[in-house]
Amino acid sequence: MANVVFCDDFDKAIAAFIIANGAAAAGYEVTLFFTFWGLNILRKSGPVSARKNLIEKLFGFMMPKGANRLTLSKMNMAGMGLAMIKGIMKHKNVMSLPELIAQAQHSGVRMVVCTMSMDLMGIKREELIDGIEEGGVAMFIDQLSQSSAGLFIS
Amino acid sequence: MANVVFCDDFDKAIAAFIIANGAAAAGYEVTLFFTFWGLNILRKSGPVSARKNLIEKLFGFMMPKGANRLTLSKMNMAGMGLAMIKGIMKHKNVMSLPELIAQAQHSGVRMVVCTMSMDLMGIKREELIDGIEEGGVAMFIDQLSQSSAGLFIS
Amino acid sequence: MANVVFCDDFDKAIAAFIIANGAAAAGYEVTLFFTFWGLNILRKSGPVSARKNLIEKLFGFMMPKGANRLTLSKMNMAGMGLAMIKGIMKHKNVMSLPELIAQAQHSGVRMVVCTMSMDLMGIKREELIDGIEEGGVAMFIDQLSQSSAGLFIS
Repeated sequence: MANVVFCDDFDKAIAAFIIANGAAAAGYEVTLFFTFWGLNILRKSGPVSARKNLIEKLFGFMMPKGANRLTLSKMNMAGMGLAMIKGIMKHKNVMSLPELIAQAQHSGVRMVVCTMSMDLMGIKREELIDGIEEGGVAMFIDQLSQSSAGLFIS
Repeated sequence: MANVVFCDDFDKAIAAFIIANGAAAAGYEVTLFFTFWGLNILRKSGPVSARKNLIEKLFGFMMPKGANRLTLSKMNMAGMGLAMIKGIMKHKNVMSLPELIAQAQHSGVRMVVCTMSMDLMGIKREELIDGIEEGGVAMFIDQLSQSSAGLFIS
Repeated sequence: MANVVFCDDFDKAIAAFIIANGAAAAGYEVTLFFTFWGLNILRKSGPVSARKNLIEKLFGFMMPKGANRLTLSKMNMAGMGLAMIKGIMKHKNVMSLPELIAQAQHSGVRMVVCTMSMDLMGIKREELIDGIEEGGVAMFIDQLSQSSAGLFIS
């Protein structure tokens, strides 16, 4: 399975990792390609020193810094909707997003960030969590051609 | 064909059901998995008595109640854009969304709601239209593995 | 490969064409089906005289007129975010969206607009760039059934 994760909404990130982990649990090899806003899911939360120009700094400042800073695509309501959903997830013993990501890495889900997207968003390698590969569209097409399924999660 | 319907925008719901019905008409077995906001497409429009806590009631109140309450993802313009699109659909003899859903059920399109999403959104079984199954990610992966195509409609 | 392009956000259009061109470069036959807002990507930028009723004129006026008028799905910031991204693309020698579209046509990527969407959006054939086919859901299902991959880009 080779999926694209295009977007950094909390709800879609949850869906992307639940599907990836489910497929890995069923024995499939899974690769997730993070493009555009999807890169933000993999950013480290703390401050990272990276050489950036002014535009890159501004973008980096305005975009969410990692899995704990994402918001809902709908009903976010200044964080209230998000807090509710996270509360229910905890109450129902659903894994948190950072836990889902850790589980994916543990299960051997390959995570690849799009090199061009890193350029466009001004995101540097050292800003991303460990265990991430870099790749381009040729790598995605190659993986997709070997896959029985591919989803574009946007 | 095994598609995920993640979202409750009117335009995307229309696309999801036109594709599903088209595939069913071409002889394919089609399963639609409704997750997150997608569940709202299948809610009954009238009042339903269901045991809910305060948060679930609030969510239930704020989210669209079924196929007739969805809005456009763009150009909704406080309902004007939506009214225009619906007017054109009627004028051009395109089926309405409730009709498309009924046709899907009639054509044997399987509709499955994600059990975890029901929990997260606080949506109870009795709030959904009849003829809907419940399932989890394992069921989706299983269906997808037997399918020649799978789309993520978000 | 048979993909649906549902949406007219600049970032998603870029992703759609980079994937399509990458697949074409790898030797795949690629068809892109443009539905709903996706049609706007293919509109000519200049004024086009087409017989339209009042509603169609209003929609046509409010929706983006072609690849140079699209906006970002996020961080558009009244065009500032878009200008930054376009600036970086130029600086990094990434093709512009019109260039990506031209390359797709040159590489033999089939581009099909959904006839029903043209009706719904009030977009006429003469408003679209040259080299575009028209088709319906049956054509998409047929193409998808012959494809090893299909993405829904929304």
